Amino acid sequence: MPQAVVFATEHSQVAALARFCHEQRISLVARGTGTGTTGATVPIEGGVLLSLERMNRILEIDPDNRLAKVEPGVTNQILQTALAEKGFFWPPDPTSALICTIGGNLAYNSAGPRAVKYGTPRENTLGLRAVLGNGQTIHTGVNTTKGVVGYDLTRLLIGSEGTLGLITEATLKLTPLPETKRTLQANYKDIHAAAHAVSAIMAQPVTPCALEFMDGAALAMVRDFSDLELDPAVGALLMIEVDGPAHSIEKETAAISEAASNPGLLEIHTAETTEAVISLWKTRKALSPALRNVAPKKINEDVVVPVSRIPDLIGGLERLSADTGITIINFGHAGNGNIHVNLLLDPDDPDQMSLGEMCLSRLFDLTLSLGGTLSGEHGIGLVKQPYIDREIDPVTLELMRCIKRQFDPRNILNPGKVFPSTA
Amino acid sequence: MPQAVVFATEHSQVAALARFCHEQRISLVARGTGTGTTGATVPIEGGVLLSLERMNRILEIDPDNRLAKVEPGVTNQILQTALAEKGFFWPPDPTSALICTIGGNLAYNSAGPRAVKYGTPRENTLGLRAVLGNGQTIHTGVNTTKGVVGYDLTRLLIGSEGTLGLITEATLKLTPLPETKRTLQANYKDIHAAAHAVSAIMAQPVTPCALEFMDGAALAMVRDFSDLELDPAVGALLMIEVDGPAHSIEKETAAISEAASNPGLLEIHTAETTEAVISLWKTRKALSPALRNVAPKKINEDVVVPVSRIPDLIGGLERLSADTGITIINFGHAGNGNIHVNLLLDPDDPDQMSLGEMCLSRLFDLTLSLGGTLSGEHGIGLVKQPYIDREIDPVTLELMRCIKRQFDPRNILNPGKVFPSTA
Repeated sequence: MPQAVVFATEHSQVAALARFCHEQRISLVARGTGTGTTGATVPIEGGVLLSLERMNRILEIDPDNRLAKVEPGVTNQILQTALAEKGFFWPPDPTSALICTIGGNLAYNSAGPRAVKYGTPRENTLGLRAVLGNGQTIHTGVNTTKGVVGYDLTRLLIGSEGTLGLITEATLKLTPLPETKRTLQANYKDIHAAAHAVSAIMAQPVTPCALEFMDGAALAMVRDFSDLELDPAVGALLMIEVDGPAHSIEKETAAISEAASNPGLLEIHTAETTEAVISLWKTRKALSPALRNVAPKKINEDVVVPVSRIPDLIGGLERLSADTGITIINFGHAGNGNIHVNLLLDPDDPDQMSLGEMCLSRLFDLTLSLGGTLSGEHGIGLVKQPYIDREIDPVTLELMRCIKRQFDPRNILNPGKVFPSTA
Repeated sequence: MPQAVVFATEHSQVAALARFCHEQRISLVARGTGTGTTGATVPIEGGVLLSLERMNRILEIDPDNRLAKVEPGVTNQILQTALAEKGFFWPPDPTSALICTIGGNLAYNSAGPRAVKYGTPRENTLGLRAVLGNGQTIHTGVNTTKGVVGYDLTRLLIGSEGTLGLITEATLKLTPLPETKRTLQANYKDIHAAAHAVSAIMAQPVTPCALEFMDGAALAMVRDFSDLELDPAVGALLMIEVDGPAHSIEKETAAISEAASNPGLLEIHTAETTEAVISLWKTRKALSPALRNVAPKKINEDVVVPVSRIPDLIGGLERLSADTGITIINFGHAGNGNIHVNLLLDPDDPDQMSLGEMCLSRLFDLTLSLGGTLSGEHGIGLVKQPYIDREIDPVTLELMRCIKRQFDPRNILNPGKVFPSTA
């Protein structure tokens, strides 16, 4: 629990608050709507929690220059709705889009399915205004898609989880809405066939706007906890979306279907109506309720591996599951190699929980051995701190700490996050 | 002139050299092939010049994972040729692609025409290995298109002009080669009609892979110094390229043509053969020789403004030219608002040179008043230092200096660049 919660409504209040906290050496944790999954906004040292929910104005939408200026507390969904009226969208689309804030999306570089084609916040943000740990204000980036004057502090702030600065305004790069979209579901006999298809899809010029997968364990879960009819032979599944102009969507869909076809493909369905799209997504949408049903406290990691290594990751996780008896369910953004690994644990069982920690440790080692990274979009926060030095070497990590001190000399901004505490 | 030139061939040599220079407090300037235009690689304090020309290996091309690992000294063209054999390209394409190095492209965030569709190095680089100013080695980024573990040092190094670290290896994000391309030339009665077309093109979903323009003064130059036939009514010109799958290129070209059409459009030509493409580019390609002919020492700036403000920029420059009698020629990457402003000056005429400085100063003020930035792809280097504080506020600039000290505590890496010297 924090000692105080401040609901700021404008930049000057955020600056005054940071100045005060700096002077008084009080910790200051920024928070949007609290949808993060790594505990990054938990005020572990007490202090002040700065809620940015009321700084939720869309300041400007400028279609001619493909940009929007927003305050950090606007939700992703409200922004997308406003942009759609002008024919544009902002690519990042976390599953929590309905309630998560742009400020939070920037804090974690949160993406979602569309990142495979359109990138993450780092590729879709032009500039920021932010308050430093001493209350001073900085302006980063530009209003344009090119700019190389001074250092790129925009991307440095994005993904820094509130440890470097408090973002009070963002200039976002907009993308024109595609004219139309097609949804495909491709069923494979096993994960190797599905993973091979992912590589083949990503090696040809038509990039899908979503390339999601579910492994055999995820499908088993859906079979057990829903009334979906799914052929028992299906061992892995891809959900693919293709967007583009109406005149070429059929051809692009055909190109994707062709790349998705290999000897392990059992069947491929294409939806052409809204009803058919909903029907195709049913299997995927049934997963989260089924998971909650079985394991309300599951551990959900979001490791990333190069797409060609997905089969190795899944194979390793199958062995890990067999070794420990822990059910591991995998799904996620296959086009980016960003796999959501779910360990189904009973939090009331201390043996399971300690097995779970061992599993996590082996998951992270496996990911890194495959050339991957510990987090694609959830960040480090509190829960992944013990593992960050497995990925980042000591010299680079120390440099990051030194950079943090320049932004926040008294370490008041979200202290105890990202970096493991030093002995 | 430097006091010594070191031709490194591997990372460990670069690290040893930086360690030595750190210990001895000798300045160390990294250099590719010297194609930069802002003096950023001129060793103004003498010291050691580190040539990276011999660290020119392509270490890995991995089509399955859409990435390549390269040393900094490989030229852009050699890399593109190797990638094309696998069906891929790396989007940044400076005009000097034939001879400029990837290390240099990263140092300045150099882009080129394709950036309008595919982005700059910051959107197309996954990770880096670099040597700090004390000889220590850091590893930044990931092998994947998502990753949010620790701070984004990759983008911080990109565009830092050799002042933060010496890049010894880069992991580049690849894009599949489009199947085909169409080239269009659209002639307008004036710059306002052309600029209106640029905004209209950028506001619809088909993004061209090049959207270049020439203003009236540039066309006049070409008329006078080549035998090109160009209707005297043409006051501005757009060169547009559209790429994509063969099955949709006609429709996409038609969409672009439609967006390019407004009352000020005089004629639009589409090239369908290689000969026709060469013919269409003739006007544009005639410009550089013509410029060199008239003004061998022209000042070439690369300011950027939001695309809707291009007419205001050009209008302001016309007034500036009228006020000073200095010929100003404008062309460049209109789709990004990145305009190459050329002041034609006689370097042997001190009056002209001092007028030129006044012109530059007014150009930069005008650019910033339009919401623009001083440099899109050339960087600050030596020549734009006096102006950087017009764009970047004192707090942000001081923060950048503090960051520099963390990477390079003794200020040996390219000293005297980017930041104006403090009094």
